[in-house]
Amino acid sequence: MKELEERIRKEGTVKQGNVLKVDAFLNHQCDVALYDAMGAAWAEHFQGKTITKILTIEASGIGMACVAARHFGNVPVVFAKKAQSINLDGDQYVTTVYSFTKQREFPVIVSRKYLGPDDHVLLIDDFLANGKALHGLIDICKHAGATVEGIGIAVEKGFQGGGDKLREEGYDLDSLAIVESMDPETGDIEFRG
Amino acid sequence: MKELEERIRKEGTVKQGNVLKVDAFLNHQCDVALYDAMGAAWAEHFQGKTITKILTIEASGIGMACVAARHFGNVPVVFAKKAQSINLDGDQYVTTVYSFTKQREFPVIVSRKYLGPDDHVLLIDDFLANGKALHGLIDICKHAGATVEGIGIAVEKGFQGGGDKLREEGYDLDSLAIVESMDPETGDIEFRG
Repeated sequence: MKELEERIRKEGTVKQGNVLKVDAFLNHQCDVALYDAMGAAWAEHFQGKTITKILTIEASGIGMACVAARHFGNVPVVFAKKAQSINLDGDQYVTTVYSFTKQREFPVIVSRKYLGPDDHVLLIDDFLANGKALHGLIDICKHAGATVEGIGIAVEKGFQGGGDKLREEGYDLDSLAIVESMDPETGDIEFRG
Repeated sequence: MKELEERIRKEGTVKQGNVLKVDAFLNHQCDVALYDAMGAAWAEHFQGKTITKILTIEASGIGMACVAARHFGNVPVVFAKKAQSINLDGDQYVTTVYSFTKQREFPVIVSRKYLGPDDHVLLIDDFLANGKALHGLIDICKHAGATVEGIGIAVEKGFQGGGDKLREEGYDLDSLAIVESMDPETGDIEFRG
């Protein structure tokens, strides 16, 4: 997606340790017009598929998933929660995810009430690096007996391999920008052609 | 807002300890069509005000804030983050908030880059009980020198007093449903007339 690549080039910052900061428009300050264009792009890619639910993970995936849902007939968006909360029942799917950003493992939960065997799910998240968060969401869909119809990602860090592994596993993965390499010294970012 | 009150009556659950669960449509599974109607209602209430930015707090406020932003000319949405993250610079506004849901204090941060003295801010959140999270967001706006133009809340628990305190302080607060009382034994929910 040209527009997203241009925004990353213009407003993204490359930091040491494979960190790409896009918090000016994607995951701290949110450009909702860009989110809407991203939703339209995913809808075009996944057209013809029946999507009954969008599943994402807190916090950065929620905004783009909710805006994108409009392009999928306003299907419900469920967001996986990163910790036990007294507002949730015990009747949950649980998995464990390692966060690259937070550098620790944490439990991820989805209420059984909101995901089941009849669901055809589109997974949405802001970043895909090694794929640990996505594998957590896929794990939850497996627990629920739900079908993963596709995966919509804003920014894939292609050089970390998680995306290609998911493609090899047969998932229909649509990453709107795939960073092939980035240099914290020069700030250069190369996208997959 | 009639539609929201009806959903709370129909799908909300009253639990011991002043807990009202609305995770079927508001803050775990998200009804984005309802979010859109909520955004339209807030836009009507705050019409005539200049809003340059929407500020919310992760995680449950993000989805409704991003969907609502469409009704405010697609202004940027900034979400305050609940913990230090290696993806954020040191240049942040910081405050501390006590979470009723998580029953502990946590730091809340917003990058200085995304909020400043020129901003006219609409605060949005899913719940208002004692007002601790909102006071954290107001505190951050004060640090930034930004003007709080108004506060849009989905569900105010009126009997916990946080909303009336904010009204007394002069804030333009639009809660779409105000729960005056609720009974965990019978499940009865009374709304402010």
